[in-house]
Amino acid sequence: MAEQNKSKTKLQEDIKIQGEIVRKLKSEKADKEQINEEVAKLLALKAELGDDGPVKNFVLKTPKGTRDYGPPQMAIREGAFNKIISTFKRHGAETLDTPVFELKETLTGKYGEDSKLIYDLADQGGELLSLRYDLTVPFARFLAMNKIVSIKRYHIAKVYRRDNPAMTRGRYREFYQCDFDIAGQYDPMIPDAECIKIVAEILQSLDLGNFVVKVNHRKLLDGMFAACGVPDDKFRCICSAVDKLDKTFWNDVRSEMIDEKGLDPTAADKIGEYVQLKGGLELIDKLLQDENLNKQKLAVEGLEDLKLMLKYCDIFGILDKVSFDLSLARGLDYYTGVIYEAVLTGYSHKPNSGEGEAESVGSVAGGGRYDGLVGMFDPKNKMVPCVGVSIGIERLFAILEARAQASENKVRTTSTDVFVISAQKNMLEDRLKLCTELWNNDIRTEQSYKKNPKMLSQLQTCETEGIPLAVVIGQSEIENNIVKLRNIATREEREVPRANMVEEIIAELDKLRNQSK
Amino acid sequence: MAEQNKSKTKLQEDIKIQGEIVRKLKSEKADKEQINEEVAKLLALKAELGDDGPVKNFVLKTPKGTRDYGPPQMAIREGAFNKIISTFKRHGAETLDTPVFELKETLTGKYGEDSKLIYDLADQGGELLSLRYDLTVPFARFLAMNKIVSIKRYHIAKVYRRDNPAMTRGRYREFYQCDFDIAGQYDPMIPDAECIKIVAEILQSLDLGNFVVKVNHRKLLDGMFAACGVPDDKFRCICSAVDKLDKTFWNDVRSEMIDEKGLDPTAADKIGEYVQLKGGLELIDKLLQDENLNKQKLAVEGLEDLKLMLKYCDIFGILDKVSFDLSLARGLDYYTGVIYEAVLTGYSHKPNSGEGEAESVGSVAGGGRYDGLVGMFDPKNKMVPCVGVSIGIERLFAILEARAQASENKVRTTSTDVFVISAQKNMLEDRLKLCTELWNNDIRTEQSYKKNPKMLSQLQTCETEGIPLAVVIGQSEIENNIVKLRNIATREEREVPRANMVEEIIAELDKLRNQSK
Repeated sequence: MAEQNKSKTKLQEDIKIQGEIVRKLKSEKADKEQINEEVAKLLALKAELGDDGPVKNFVLKTPKGTRDYGPPQMAIREGAFNKIISTFKRHGAETLDTPVFELKETLTGKYGEDSKLIYDLADQGGELLSLRYDLTVPFARFLAMNKIVSIKRYHIAKVYRRDNPAMTRGRYREFYQCDFDIAGQYDPMIPDAECIKIVAEILQSLDLGNFVVKVNHRKLLDGMFAACGVPDDKFRCICSAVDKLDKTFWNDVRSEMIDEKGLDPTAADKIGEYVQLKGGLELIDKLLQDENLNKQKLAVEGLEDLKLMLKYCDIFGILDKVSFDLSLARGLDYYTGVIYEAVLTGYSHKPNSGEGEAESVGSVAGGGRYDGLVGMFDPKNKMVPCVGVSIGIERLFAILEARAQASENKVRTTSTDVFVISAQKNMLEDRLKLCTELWNNDIRTEQSYKKNPKMLSQLQTCETEGIPLAVVIGQSEIENNIVKLRNIATREEREVPRANMVEEIIAELDKLRNQSK
Repeated sequence: MAEQNKSKTKLQEDIKIQGEIVRKLKSEKADKEQINEEVAKLLALKAELGDDGPVKNFVLKTPKGTRDYGPPQMAIREGAFNKIISTFKRHGAETLDTPVFELKETLTGKYGEDSKLIYDLADQGGELLSLRYDLTVPFARFLAMNKIVSIKRYHIAKVYRRDNPAMTRGRYREFYQCDFDIAGQYDPMIPDAECIKIVAEILQSLDLGNFVVKVNHRKLLDGMFAACGVPDDKFRCICSAVDKLDKTFWNDVRSEMIDEKGLDPTAADKIGEYVQLKGGLELIDKLLQDENLNKQKLAVEGLEDLKLMLKYCDIFGILDKVSFDLSLARGLDYYTGVIYEAVLTGYSHKPNSGEGEAESVGSVAGGGRYDGLVGMFDPKNKMVPCVGVSIGIERLFAILEARAQASENKVRTTSTDVFVISAQKNMLEDRLKLCTELWNNDIRTEQSYKKNPKMLSQLQTCETEGIPLAVVIGQSEIENNIVKLRNIATREEREVPRANMVEEIIAELDKLRNQSK
């Protein structure tokens, strides 16, 4: 381990330099986050010198671009996951999981310009590793490694990108993806259309207002580039320029194409005409008549695919949610066919226009067909066609959390049904006995961890936690072999024989659940 | 990013050297895993040179010490998680989540000798980060950061240790922990005993045969070390030597104490007498009479704590599962009170004795009290007492997976209830319409992704996947506005009007579920 071999003198020198960096930043009143980062480095160096002893005074934070989920956020997150998982299962998906890191080489050459955002692990001896950047490449590696030629699976897990975070809008460096993919050699567009149906079902179930799923096709894009006179070797970089159109104005994208990527201005202007087109089946038919495009075999193939997919979307009853949009490009290298991206239309989303810009959540799902990716992992280049979609759940969380904060209703973070209360002192053992009986009968039960808690504070716990029932005991209840059942909301109490306690509680809870339905 | 700045010449040189390493290992017929590692490095270097282009021919594997979970493993994993989460919720726990990496300094000085097993991330600019080593330190960081003084929470997530993997025994470098902790200033031993109750409930619910929860106390260990004449500054390192007693014979531990750690042999022999003691309340009482121990304030405090905890365990009905064991030490630095460790007694577990050693799973849960950890993160050193337990779920998975493999019953990996079958050609659109109706009514439905699948292959899918019902349509069904409902197990078919299809299916599925209860 390189760091352990650092000499003490070298460390002391590093600490001196790092200290100066911190002082300089502070004197310049630099960005607080940047100062924190450098202070953290300084303290880490000092800790190293100090023989691994505990560090005091360090910056108490999570790493840049990451967050903790406290219990209220977890309650929202689990609610959303349950709806998403139900949808995936409704469509017959299995699930699988892969390690959080992969061999570095597994990720190499899959992400185009975005590769620079991959997190690498330190070389501590052994293999060179990187944190996964998405769930698609690990899925393809899994298929090739296990020689699986068909599967329908979902995978919900965190992925890692060293991007510029924008946390209030749900953009993190560590974030969840919820992926659904169909791998296998099937008839055209049947799985592709089902992915859109799944996105629609999920967004509807989360109740996030209106949305639209933009669709386009990599072959159509390539055919269009050819028709506009883009040289073959510039397809990829022009495609990633087009990909920026959802965040930038055309004029900036045009400049990037011409000034940075060396494209002929005439070609750029032709592209500019196409990429502003959006519509439905009628646009597809119009483009099939377009004299420049319909000479391009790839463009025609892409248009025919899209036409068939929209027909299936019509049968699925979601055609009104689908928009064919020639400006949709998607950055990742591995797409080969249809591409999708879902946006919420209830939340405005404009490029920085100087006008009052509404809080925007960007795309909330994306995906497409990637028929070549598995083959990249197979020694014999054996292909497994795949299509899939990824739900950008963090952006949805951001909306759901903001909504919960604005709401009056408190989110419950436990599911405790019964609280065992003692009305007098020295009854801890009696409470423990009751808890044991309730736990052993699978009743979700809590009690105070104090020996002699006050009656009032026990009742308050029930109210703040939203626990519906209390079992109250005092000396007389013990002597008479009874307990009091108290309904926290109505404050009604009734006595039940100790021997019937469990069944009475189960019946009472059933009643309460039916009432709240 | 250091690597991107490497010059091409430097890279070519590195590739040459790495190539020689690989050739040398191969000619020496070295360990296959080691060769694979070095080949992987070589290919990564080549990929870097090759302008980030796709790598061919690389080693197709997950990183050392990690694994994929395919659908059957996931089904087992989810079954176990559900039981564990139910238990945590039965005891009123909330849940939370933290990032997979922390600032490096957050982990510094918490793990004693084990710190060398921490995974660091590469310095790519910005903060220095490490992968979490457990869930306890992030939990303490979370409490201090949010100034939380009491909470009962569970956290199920993966942690990372660069240890020597032993995968068949469930020892991985990436593995799940299921943690339950109670933070707060409470009366002695009430939360501590509940943690043991929770471990007992979980192990019982997973049906893994007999088990025992070993308990001991850090204060008792320290008092015992003092009574045996161990100098204060050697407590920690002698404690971590004792910790090896579950894997090593006393003679080896004794040598480590004397030869490596410089302990006086008389002191070591005194320790040797104590650490072979195990028992219950009677042993505690005996030790309270021990003239050496009962002069040590810490030892008496520890024994009194244990006595009270065992009393509560008795009320919980789990005293027969608890064994007071003076050889239990637990390696981590942060424990301050009671410590626990659960082992399955149905699976033999012996030190390497040269005799035929049975496959051992080691400890399946562990934990203890750590009253000082949160204070280490608080700027004013404000303490939040905590106690908790961590379920070593991978070892339990190893047993559950082996059991599933040995069993005749296939684990279902989907929960699809209905398969839509067409009996003739050119009925894809009719099938899609049926699927849409079923999905929109929340019925878990699949169909073939082929335009014209064969009848037999559709029925086979139902049987291999364990799908209970099929909806069968042909031209005559369409014309008569009916569908055929087929019970896959009995092969019975009946006709139902298309308009009643959904309700008929729901009723049929209810019936099947009640039958299988």
